[in-house]
Amino acid sequence: MGLIVQKFGGTSVADLGKIENIARRVIKTKNEGNKVVVVMSAMAGETDRLIELAHRAADEPDEREYDALVSIGEQVTVTLLSIVLNKMGYRAKSLLGFQAGILTDQSYKKARILHIDTGNIKKELRKRTIVVIAGFQGVDKENSITTLGRGGSDTSAVALAAALKADVCEIYTDVDGVYTADPSICSKARRLNKISYDEMLEMARAGAKVLQPRSVELAKKYEVPVYVRSSFTDNGGTLVTKEDKDMEKEVVCGVTYDRDQAKITVVRVPDRPGIAARLFTPLAQHNIVVDMIIQNASVDGFTDLTFTVSRKDMKKASELVKKVAKEISAKKIEIDDGVAKVSIIGVGMISHSGVAARMFSTLAREGINIMMISTSEIKISCVVQAKYTELAVSALHDAFITDK
Amino acid sequence: MGLIVQKFGGTSVADLGKIENIARRVIKTKNEGNKVVVVMSAMAGETDRLIELAHRAADEPDEREYDALVSIGEQVTVTLLSIVLNKMGYRAKSLLGFQAGILTDQSYKKARILHIDTGNIKKELRKRTIVVIAGFQGVDKENSITTLGRGGSDTSAVALAAALKADVCEIYTDVDGVYTADPSICSKARRLNKISYDEMLEMARAGAKVLQPRSVELAKKYEVPVYVRSSFTDNGGTLVTKEDKDMEKEVVCGVTYDRDQAKITVVRVPDRPGIAARLFTPLAQHNIVVDMIIQNASVDGFTDLTFTVSRKDMKKASELVKKVAKEISAKKIEIDDGVAKVSIIGVGMISHSGVAARMFSTLAREGINIMMISTSEIKISCVVQAKYTELAVSALHDAFITDK
Repeated sequence: MGLIVQKFGGTSVADLGKIENIARRVIKTKNEGNKVVVVMSAMAGETDRLIELAHRAADEPDEREYDALVSIGEQVTVTLLSIVLNKMGYRAKSLLGFQAGILTDQSYKKARILHIDTGNIKKELRKRTIVVIAGFQGVDKENSITTLGRGGSDTSAVALAAALKADVCEIYTDVDGVYTADPSICSKARRLNKISYDEMLEMARAGAKVLQPRSVELAKKYEVPVYVRSSFTDNGGTLVTKEDKDMEKEVVCGVTYDRDQAKITVVRVPDRPGIAARLFTPLAQHNIVVDMIIQNASVDGFTDLTFTVSRKDMKKASELVKKVAKEISAKKIEIDDGVAKVSIIGVGMISHSGVAARMFSTLAREGINIMMISTSEIKISCVVQAKYTELAVSALHDAFITDK
Repeated sequence: MGLIVQKFGGTSVADLGKIENIARRVIKTKNEGNKVVVVMSAMAGETDRLIELAHRAADEPDEREYDALVSIGEQVTVTLLSIVLNKMGYRAKSLLGFQAGILTDQSYKKARILHIDTGNIKKELRKRTIVVIAGFQGVDKENSITTLGRGGSDTSAVALAAALKADVCEIYTDVDGVYTADPSICSKARRLNKISYDEMLEMARAGAKVLQPRSVELAKKYEVPVYVRSSFTDNGGTLVTKEDKDMEKEVVCGVTYDRDQAKITVVRVPDRPGIAARLFTPLAQHNIVVDMIIQNASVDGFTDLTFTVSRKDMKKASELVKKVAKEISAKKIEIDDGVAKVSIIGVGMISHSGVAARMFSTLAREGINIMMISTSEIKISCVVQAKYTELAVSALHDAFITDK
């Protein structure tokens, strides 16, 4: 007998019929002798509808109130699933963030879980209750509702699995696992049976939509085995786990892309200490995540500084940077939201040379200009014009994965 | 400077435009130097939509989960109003039941408020925040969400006014006050400027929709002045308050009706002690409120027992009673949901004789058969066939009110 956390999201929570399917799957796991904790995200499209409602009420809605509003979608799905499970004869109880003891910091809209007080959950599990917990939400120390940001339900599930020392955290989603590339734009993509936390983390950060990066970070930190499965079939699945000897050390295990990118360039910045800090501190204060940062070599004591942010943050980021640019007498700022990031990921890169050169030449052969480059130990990313996304992904998949 | 509780409900919370109107009214009160606590109900129709959703998930949805689901409507309106108030430059904060310290018992779907821990509300009021509280909901001692039943937001508002020792509790609604009869079915109905708690209580219990009976009970108990006003005009209003010398001691101040009635008769019940208790205990255990109870004189040691319940409870009530009827060898049970209750209310009845006789003869003159009668010190109610409702109300209004 084990303790299993099962998270359901996306189109698998689209309507009542789908929720009945989820109930049957949960009951199957329960009947196999396991304790089950279910984490639900909102019905597909529901959170977007609530976000739109908030923005119709105000251009920049108060963030505390925004979080209390957009957390509602999960309240609907947890109560409906609990109603259905009870109807089917299984004792089930929904717990919202404040009832599940999910304590977060106060960064509304992208709060981080600080601690989970599992007392209430464990009490219910001892009574053999199926515990159905609202993903995406928590409460801060003042008992205000917070949300964890896009895809936050994955993070809720992994954090709960870690706190409860669950045997596995199963993430049910629209696809049947993690692929070497997005199958909808790369026909040769194939499913991976196993992937290491580090590779999954880089793939998630680089745009693979299947898991939220923070959830992978957490899984790695607490060594929670995460099993990505399809809500619709019993086939397949990808296990995200510690790196082990069995894993093929592919040079490149996946090719990803991220179209949610905007590029901002500050032109002719005086090249002296403290300038970068002045530019990026206001962004951090506004919770804007900066992805890549590139600074060209200095000429005549001036340099150009380019960075990327999420598209939704472009307007706010450019306003903030414009203000600082004026103060430090930079020449101007340029913005471009027609860009995308393509990346190749693989632990094998560490021990193989020439991977970057091969990536650049592959893109060059297709006539794709590289605007920015960033690398980590197991990842290389290039920012290119957005219109080349599919072409770049397919060419890189051919070069590094299909051919092998 | 005072402390004012303002409650908005019904069609005055129909959409974002209406919520902006509410914001302007709240700001006006705030700018007059008052501390303001706002209590919101859900957008018109929203709670019904959620109830329907719960019943699509299960015929008899688990009650704890049902309450957690149907409480969502108020979460939408309190956050939207707070977003709008903040946008307009006024510090506002929404509080849900668990955040406002509204502790109830565990009777899901019709919970009663046990205590309000006002610490959090008062802290915010001291910071000059406009506090926007979700009506209709609270939490029980296990932190599960409970709801107060239909119209429960009125009760929330009065309970908060009492706990905070507010100067007045203003109830904003679709109509501009309390009328001598429902103006939509009685053209001669007129608005009352003042009404006593007792009269208002009987009118609310007897079907006047303007205030929820429990809210009037509470108002009476804690002597909270309640001002019923229109959300759409600044005119009119009815003050519900302690009886005072200024009040005209009308024989009859109002005529009401209630179509939400179903009649159940248990035929040939053995007339021995304990039978009534056996019949009604299961109903009480299922939180079914029995309104009128009539027992005919015993013949041959048997009697007929008739009672009324809310139409929504008819099915459940008849099932429960059928079971007991079998056990006690009653002949059969009969049910009828084609009935309505018409009532006349007035403190003047105490000192006037012949009021009941005049009511019965008025109905008889119109050819309306009286099926059940019940009286209190200041109220007389008759159950009649539902199709006579309008006719009965108009005739009684003519006989007791218009003519004076």
